[in-house]
Amino acid sequence: MIAEKMESLVSNNSVIRQMFEEGRVMAARYGSENVYDFSLGNPNVPAPAKVGEVIKELLDHEDPVALHGYMPNAGFPDVRAKIAASLNSRFGTGFTADNIIMTVGAAGGLNCALKAITDPGDEILTFAPYFLEYRNYAANHGGILKEIPPDTSTFQPDLTALLEAVGPRTKALIINNPNNPSGVIYTEETIKGIAKVLEDKQKEYGTDIFILSDEPYRELVYSGAEVPYITKYYSNTIVGYSFSKTLSLPGERIGYLVIPDEVSDHEKVFEACVIANRILGFVNAPSLMQKVVGECLDEKTDIGFYAENRDLMYDALTEMGYECIRPDGAFYMFIKSPAEDEKEFVNAAKEEHILLVPGSSFACSGFVRLSYCVSHETCRNSLPGFKRLADRFMGQ
Amino acid sequence: MIAEKMESLVSNNSVIRQMFEEGRVMAARYGSENVYDFSLGNPNVPAPAKVGEVIKELLDHEDPVALHGYMPNAGFPDVRAKIAASLNSRFGTGFTADNIIMTVGAAGGLNCALKAITDPGDEILTFAPYFLEYRNYAANHGGILKEIPPDTSTFQPDLTALLEAVGPRTKALIINNPNNPSGVIYTEETIKGIAKVLEDKQKEYGTDIFILSDEPYRELVYSGAEVPYITKYYSNTIVGYSFSKTLSLPGERIGYLVIPDEVSDHEKVFEACVIANRILGFVNAPSLMQKVVGECLDEKTDIGFYAENRDLMYDALTEMGYECIRPDGAFYMFIKSPAEDEKEFVNAAKEEHILLVPGSSFACSGFVRLSYCVSHETCRNSLPGFKRLADRFMGQ
Repeated sequence: MIAEKMESLVSNNSVIRQMFEEGRVMAARYGSENVYDFSLGNPNVPAPAKVGEVIKELLDHEDPVALHGYMPNAGFPDVRAKIAASLNSRFGTGFTADNIIMTVGAAGGLNCALKAITDPGDEILTFAPYFLEYRNYAANHGGILKEIPPDTSTFQPDLTALLEAVGPRTKALIINNPNNPSGVIYTEETIKGIAKVLEDKQKEYGTDIFILSDEPYRELVYSGAEVPYITKYYSNTIVGYSFSKTLSLPGERIGYLVIPDEVSDHEKVFEACVIANRILGFVNAPSLMQKVVGECLDEKTDIGFYAENRDLMYDALTEMGYECIRPDGAFYMFIKSPAEDEKEFVNAAKEEHILLVPGSSFACSGFVRLSYCVSHETCRNSLPGFKRLADRFMGQ
Repeated sequence: MIAEKMESLVSNNSVIRQMFEEGRVMAARYGSENVYDFSLGNPNVPAPAKVGEVIKELLDHEDPVALHGYMPNAGFPDVRAKIAASLNSRFGTGFTADNIIMTVGAAGGLNCALKAITDPGDEILTFAPYFLEYRNYAANHGGILKEIPPDTSTFQPDLTALLEAVGPRTKALIINNPNNPSGVIYTEETIKGIAKVLEDKQKEYGTDIFILSDEPYRELVYSGAEVPYITKYYSNTIVGYSFSKTLSLPGERIGYLVIPDEVSDHEKVFEACVIANRILGFVNAPSLMQKVVGECLDEKTDIGFYAENRDLMYDALTEMGYECIRPDGAFYMFIKSPAEDEKEFVNAAKEEHILLVPGSSFACSGFVRLSYCVSHETCRNSLPGFKRLADRFMGQ
């Protein structure tokens, strides 16, 4: 009945649904204030007030036919020009509107880029731990995801493993920086190392190998940490950005692709991405939201809110004996499971009404992901439960 | 560099872009009021005032985290329930929220449905003339589009040709009713005939054959014409709807799929479509617009505006000797080209500053499409040009 490829996805999905269902049942039974749900990556800080103000202004002053109508599939040229200017002022790049394609979130953008460049059987690399959806994105367009094992001591990409993984059919490397689920920012040194490996391999095989940089968390960084802008380090880079986290608009599906002039055969790649946007059925990014983000490029989410949670949870959990890299970005902590099988720990946490995601959901077992995009109360009130778990699993 | 499959699309696209470019150059040279652009299918009637009012109310009264946030990938349950109730009251169906998936327009919905059901090599049928993008939609998911030749005397689907076209690998038939580009509404008799052929063939081959009914023009009908609701005639029907034309919101990318309980293995098909929505990168339909359409289901576009254009153009052109079926729906007329090669006629029309689309762009050469979603002035002022073309090609 359904496509054969969809069968395993459908049966797998019911497991995820079951997990959500458990959370809901728990909240209904114990009261949602007594369930500590650290399982979701959904911003809980509201969109900046300016978002609503801009929407109202647009409704009052723009022609509705233009505001809600079709535009070029790449997006409104004025919005694309504003995004290019904003990137240039922040990262010293030299983009114009012709380097920007408005997309249905970063997920939509990544699919357009993969559709544009992937031939059946091409290999798409990514570093574990990673957002498992990348596997589906690659498969949508005939690509095969190949994961590169994690360096669990630093969660920086393992360059030796990268060198071994790249082959003649490698079409792209997806990186996610700051990283979900580790919260780690790939350093400039790491980025330079990745660029060097890929440049050498491009020469060796006479191929083009793209970096697809998935950057929804770019603006979610703490203590002034910097996230290198990858187009400056490697020519064949396509950046996928989303306003989901920065402006707390995940449901609105608004983002963009950056395709620098330095990409080989830039015009063709750009055009292929625009066509992919059209034929995959996106057609264009939602029109009103394009205009909105164009006016909100200097707006910031309340990063202090997330930073407070990070400090609270990191300090408390490491004090209890949990091992974890202090995250510099995103709103995740990736904690070493005190039980060898992290699913055992996830289940034990459930008994404390604490919901976590097993690392195996990110191709990195032995760890659990904690999303701290929750209220301060949820963080604070979860600590006694974490303490009991520490006592139980770490022996005192 | 780019995927091999994208190469022809990219070179083909530059032809379409050239056409748009010509229109722009013409408008700049002669003044846009002196160019009669009948080439686009973009509503020129503004969205109902209620759309803006609802947006403002939502911004004032809803929690922004919920309004702009993630929801189940199928869409907000309350919006889906409202859509189901609206369909039930209008068509006597028995849908619930569990039959509705909110999608990124009808194009997004069709891609989700095709992803859900298509195995590589499956055949997807459609009746010419048709929206050529269907070929890309099928190919995205490994399907092969097979077109069924048109009956140019009525532009109703040719049932004998359908019978011959259906084979053991036929997975779906895409129909578009009211039809772009013909403006014809498939009659109840036609629909019953299609259902009979497909039911017989399902039995013969022991397969499931879906109707994918692409219905963005459902509400754009004239003189009280009725568009049969296809789920009532054929069990394995999936409907793809868009608010693009009804509410003049084409840029907002908002629509839905209907997957009735009667579809074989309904739950699995529904689930596969929801997963396709997620993994193709749509994730969910834009959240604010979901809420908006949920409050605007009884709103109507100014159909009288389009009806006036239809009558004006149909009466004037047939009076001049052009041959055309009087359209009952959508905002298109499909006119028999008075030159054997319709591209010759399209080029001659350009000299009169009249922009039309050749029928070969809909797999039906010998005809041209005129989109009358333009101002009344554009219609009226184009008539002298059409008269000169009639004199030139039809000899007096």
